[in-house]
Amino acid sequence: MSTSSNGGTRPVSIAAIAKAAGVSVPTVSKVLNGRPDVAAGTRARVESILEQQHYQRRRARKSSRPALIDLVFHEMHSAWATEIIRGVELAAAEERAAIVLSELGGEHRPRREWFDDLLARGPLGVILVLAELDAGQRLRLTTRGIPFVVVDTAGEPSPGVPTVGSANWAGGLAATRHLLGLGHRRIAMISGPTDMLCSRARVDGYRSALEEAGIPVRPGFVRYGDFYMNGGHNHGLDLLRGPDRPTAIFAGSDFQALGVMRAARELGLSVPADLSVVGYDDLPVTEWIGPPLTTVRQPLREMASTATHMVFTLARGERPPSDRIDLATELIIRDSTCPPAG
Amino acid sequence: MSTSSNGGTRPVSIAAIAKAAGVSVPTVSKVLNGRPDVAAGTRARVESILEQQHYQRRRARKSSRPALIDLVFHEMHSAWATEIIRGVELAAAEERAAIVLSELGGEHRPRREWFDDLLARGPLGVILVLAELDAGQRLRLTTRGIPFVVVDTAGEPSPGVPTVGSANWAGGLAATRHLLGLGHRRIAMISGPTDMLCSRARVDGYRSALEEAGIPVRPGFVRYGDFYMNGGHNHGLDLLRGPDRPTAIFAGSDFQALGVMRAARELGLSVPADLSVVGYDDLPVTEWIGPPLTTVRQPLREMASTATHMVFTLARGERPPSDRIDLATELIIRDSTCPPAG
Repeated sequence: MSTSSNGGTRPVSIAAIAKAAGVSVPTVSKVLNGRPDVAAGTRARVESILEQQHYQRRRARKSSRPALIDLVFHEMHSAWATEIIRGVELAAAEERAAIVLSELGGEHRPRREWFDDLLARGPLGVILVLAELDAGQRLRLTTRGIPFVVVDTAGEPSPGVPTVGSANWAGGLAATRHLLGLGHRRIAMISGPTDMLCSRARVDGYRSALEEAGIPVRPGFVRYGDFYMNGGHNHGLDLLRGPDRPTAIFAGSDFQALGVMRAARELGLSVPADLSVVGYDDLPVTEWIGPPLTTVRQPLREMASTATHMVFTLARGERPPSDRIDLATELIIRDSTCPPAG
Repeated sequence: MSTSSNGGTRPVSIAAIAKAAGVSVPTVSKVLNGRPDVAAGTRARVESILEQQHYQRRRARKSSRPALIDLVFHEMHSAWATEIIRGVELAAAEERAAIVLSELGGEHRPRREWFDDLLARGPLGVILVLAELDAGQRLRLTTRGIPFVVVDTAGEPSPGVPTVGSANWAGGLAATRHLLGLGHRRIAMISGPTDMLCSRARVDGYRSALEEAGIPVRPGFVRYGDFYMNGGHNHGLDLLRGPDRPTAIFAGSDFQALGVMRAARELGLSVPADLSVVGYDDLPVTEWIGPPLTTVRQPLREMASTATHMVFTLARGERPPSDRIDLATELIIRDSTCPPAG
């Protein structure tokens, strides 16, 4: 139990908050439940007292209303999101919780209106996928006793925020070592956006593998895309049209690998004879395309299930074994990689 | 307003239901709200009185609790489901409703426990994707004033159930006419399961196109798969290994087209030179694979948005313009089809 500003460890009551804020108990209750019928000034005063007093609601799970888990995507890009949803579904079903799905439309932080509705829904917990909350939003969830877990942080993980990720650095290392082992020396990498931690970790894994093989990293060979097909296509065309083109490209995501493979086709290059390609994610489609893609398996479903179990643990008032859990990645070798020609 | 069994058009009150069932008003209320704390026998008696009296709850939208739309999938197969989710999200956001997502794990009808939780959540409406309710479940939703809309019925649409689909027959016709126009005469088709209406409509479109070209339908050339990669792969191998192999396969779904293309690769046949392939759906990935896939675009997002708007219309107590809306399909010609060799 956290120490409250009144010096003891006694939990602060709603009545005490109401008294300190000079409002009625039902008004504090309305603010906690995200109800719209409270004046903005009053709401702000109550929120600030809640914060000062380190109020934390104890939530008894009511049997009359089924539990909800809010699952929030920064952006839902197709197959990738479906894997996450399935992982959450499987774990949520164990506790008979339903999933409320939101997409922030490419924004990393949710907007005010959406957040008010979330508070009013009062979910058992929140899972954020590549999305983050600002300090004020985190505090408001804590005040309401609504735990949250982040899957694959977009930026730096905030201290104390439970996070589930995967071994991105090790994945980048394994992909690059595989290409080095086949004899490739001119290996380019197209990662995701620079502001995404998972994207930077994969680049560092790539750099480490080259370093241990004594191969200098060529600056032009490290690209930052968008994790989508177009990013792979554009950077792929640019890399493959260059004077000293790579014999292998580590595409950083399966979608980017599809873009690179199209760029190769357009330039009359054959995969893998003229260009080896490694993806990242191991989406279900990758084993069906021609050639089936060598890729780094990211255990998306398991990551999502783990995050969901963490939410249940936190909702019971317990702490998870660790604030940061990274699941293993695995290199899956298929037919898009082979030794370089000549 | 529907005529109630008391002969007039006056709505039946909860008090009247309680009296007829010999229980208290709060007990009727609990049954309506899907609360678990009512004995099974009492619940059954109340449900049957509700049905007899054609009770229909009038739901005033409460501003204190944000509206939920329940989106129910028979099965979420990756990119296909994401397109539907996005369409519902866009339309739901207009009315600030959140989406509760469920997957029935391949079952076409939801289980009892799940259905009880749905009633307890009290959503603004329900959208069923390739999933259906039985008569009792439909009645229980009607009793609670919760409207529901079906996207792409699995079986025969139940009379009076609002449904959004797409022009499956016309899609099958267009795909087959395209292949005939290129000069193909040995055209096979792999559709989805026989018990799915959309799957049968596509086969009938294929048959009509062959008929109008004066080409008899070969029984062995019409296959029923599962809409997934494996179905396309297995039927594809079987068709292409046969003595008089087709020069073109209409794969009935993009996933099945991927399976057919893999079967062709495994047998050393080149697409489109040795085999033309047409898919169905136009999933985002289809324009990125090699060769980019000729396919029939099914407007999944628009279908989902239309269904969501229908739910809002019904929730306001209005009728949609039609109980059955079919959106147009469109043939997208890419590089997986060409005239047959020789």
